[in-house]
Amino acid sequence: MKKVIVFITLKQGVLDPQGKAVQTSLHSLGFQEVEEARIGKYIELYVEDQENVSERVQAMCEQLLANPVIEDYRFEIEEAVHS
Amino acid sequence: MKKVIVFITLKQGVLDPQGKAVQTSLHSLGFQEVEEARIGKYIELYVEDQENVSERVQAMCEQLLANPVIEDYRFEIEEAVHS
Repeated sequence: MKKVIVFITLKQGVLDPQGKAVQTSLHSLGFQEVEEARIGKYIELYVEDQENVSERVQAMCEQLLANPVIEDYRFEIEEAVHS
Repeated sequence: MKKVIVFITLKQGVLDPQGKAVQTSLHSLGFQEVEEARIGKYIELYVEDQENVSERVQAMCEQLLANPVIEDYRFEIEEAVHS
């Protein structure tokens, strides 16, 4: 079993209203030092062992997990230590 | 300027309906090998340099970014390379 961690982030230049809201909230809580906040997604997949995990995960990202028009993605594959 | 990357994940045992929906969708797209999917948040913060960045970010997580009842968080602090 493999554990795949996918990081999905907005491309540079794409407006991030959710991030802006988080930044504003942090400011009103007294964290004035936050100059920018950007929100992305973090997805953990547990995948059966097979040969072409990397190609398959790339296809998952393109077809479902990310919106390639406005989002970038990257992923890491490691051995799953399932408890 | 520091770049802080915050990872927020559901605690083990907490149901993840969004992850379940992603898993179901991946299955119907033909990715039968996905045994589990769990969705978390990935937050990038750009923070002015100051002494106690780590303590401040921990406070941000506790007060706003994460829900400590059902979520775990961890973060990494690096030098920002702002373009």
